[in-house]
Amino acid sequence: MGVTVAIDCMGGDHGPSVTVPAALAFLRSHTDARVVLVGQPDVLGPAVGDAAARFGERLRIRPASQVVGMDEAPAVAMKNKKDSSMRVAINLVKEGEAQAAVSAGNTGALMAISRFVLKTLPGIDRPAIATVLPSMKGRVYVLDLGANVDCSAEHLLQFGIMGAQLVAAVEHVDRPRVGLLNIGEEEIKGNEVVREAFGLLRASDLNFCGNVEDIYRGSADVVVCDGFVGNVALKTTEGLAQMLTAILKQEFTRNPLAKLMALVALPVLKAFKKRVDHRRYNGAALLGLRGVVVKSHGSADAYAFEQAIHRAAEAAANRLIERIGERMANLAHEETA
Amino acid sequence: MGVTVAIDCMGGDHGPSVTVPAALAFLRSHTDARVVLVGQPDVLGPAVGDAAARFGERLRIRPASQVVGMDEAPAVAMKNKKDSSMRVAINLVKEGEAQAAVSAGNTGALMAISRFVLKTLPGIDRPAIATVLPSMKGRVYVLDLGANVDCSAEHLLQFGIMGAQLVAAVEHVDRPRVGLLNIGEEEIKGNEVVREAFGLLRASDLNFCGNVEDIYRGSADVVVCDGFVGNVALKTTEGLAQMLTAILKQEFTRNPLAKLMALVALPVLKAFKKRVDHRRYNGAALLGLRGVVVKSHGSADAYAFEQAIHRAAEAAANRLIERIGERMANLAHEETA
Repeated sequence: MGVTVAIDCMGGDHGPSVTVPAALAFLRSHTDARVVLVGQPDVLGPAVGDAAARFGERLRIRPASQVVGMDEAPAVAMKNKKDSSMRVAINLVKEGEAQAAVSAGNTGALMAISRFVLKTLPGIDRPAIATVLPSMKGRVYVLDLGANVDCSAEHLLQFGIMGAQLVAAVEHVDRPRVGLLNIGEEEIKGNEVVREAFGLLRASDLNFCGNVEDIYRGSADVVVCDGFVGNVALKTTEGLAQMLTAILKQEFTRNPLAKLMALVALPVLKAFKKRVDHRRYNGAALLGLRGVVVKSHGSADAYAFEQAIHRAAEAAANRLIERIGERMANLAHEETA
Repeated sequence: MGVTVAIDCMGGDHGPSVTVPAALAFLRSHTDARVVLVGQPDVLGPAVGDAAARFGERLRIRPASQVVGMDEAPAVAMKNKKDSSMRVAINLVKEGEAQAAVSAGNTGALMAISRFVLKTLPGIDRPAIATVLPSMKGRVYVLDLGANVDCSAEHLLQFGIMGAQLVAAVEHVDRPRVGLLNIGEEEIKGNEVVREAFGLLRASDLNFCGNVEDIYRGSADVVVCDGFVGNVALKTTEGLAQMLTAILKQEFTRNPLAKLMALVALPVLKAFKKRVDHRRYNGAALLGLRGVVVKSHGSADAYAFEQAIHRAAEAAANRLIERIGERMANLAHEETA
């Protein structure tokens, strides 16, 4: 697809030991894509090794002397880390040298730097974070996941527009169904902001399918909610999945007989694990910016990080930013007409 | 323990076909407890059958001519259903004929009627709904789960006090750890209400353990949140658990070989299922009222409904209402001192 992805190789819990192999795997499976590895050359050089020659100009290294810490305050990272791998990767998108950036670093710093460097699209008040999750009927995109802890009804409408364009771009769904996360299916449910958002979404030209109580049921392609609620839903999901996995493992290792049963059932357990593997869903999009930025989980391994790179490349190749921009311009036009 | 539980036998998706067998099972396992079955005698009589003689005065039937519909508006149920099984069961608690009431009926109507008939305890602005869930380290109680969609910091503090007393009463934990559901562990995280609640909880004499991101990790015995957020966390839990169970089942029935493996692994799968069985956790307490009221899931089967009756009896036997009342009185005393 001919897209260039800038990769913050120093971010995340594991840094280049994960990001570099992921980038190389991505290049192998996407033969017309290019990557720019951003980070400290003395670390990246050895990590890349022979691959530099193999991929030729499809792989470049862009030096960046600093690293944003995982717990660093966003304001401090903004002010003091102007040559960080994160900042330089975002700069490459701004300057048009790359069409997307990926980082497993500090979410707050990534959002702050992206917003400062790239700016938001016209009509977007606040960028949002969107991720994809498995559902009973395929996949569901949820936003916001924590960028905005106090949202107005208009923000939720904007999330709906951005989420619908994301699904249209990367899943090739024509009119994605947009749902509003709520505590009941009836229109009168929820707090004031949510009830007002219901009205705005229904009046919009989105394919609004009403309130959604259970994001996993698959009744919507996009589910919008404020960042506090979305983050709780995501953390609840991660926590419950971890607990269930741990209990299943405990039961299958409780005694020698159970271990034998696990051995027998291994192919099925593996198939189950693969289907619900959260690594496949790694890569949250920062939406509403004038450029594609994807946030990987900090603890991602190379397979998971590769999914995030793939997601960023898909979004860029399918003109996500232009789609959202056009849609917001139409909305402004309708409102003034 | 000598407690009498009033049971709304007509509520829930299944009515007496579930509630009556559950009540009988409860009487069998709690040999000093009593129940009052509330509902239409022509339906309850045959459902009870011979058991009436067997349990003697431990089992009574209290006639109630009406039934609150599962989708009926709470205000309508309040006004027009003064002889409903739900209302009569709550009345029995009010009049001291029973120490607790259990219903699988319409949550909104149960909350409205309970609040109207029983009234709230001094110092409690709003009753809350609390449920118990499994955690990595045992059990965790979460409130509010939907009674209050817009909470102040003071409400969250009250939830903390009520939740701690609930755990003290039914789990016999001396100083339960109380956590605040938030989107990060740092004190500065979250929206304004949550940040203010953090300060109130820390200043209180509760065993406050700070922000909790993942209710399943087991870092707290009680997790407080507003009803919108709590309801989303609960529905996300239910939805994800259903999805994972469905996928596990699909994989174990995909082909004859997989089915054979399932058969081999059956004891382990059963042990797993038992440990995560949501029916064991059925029975949410309506806290802050001058009487014990427990809400069962509408779709509960007899086993699940029996757990809800058991939970109600435990709370009453362990003086839950008195404990919350004393604690609120102390709080008022401290504030005026």
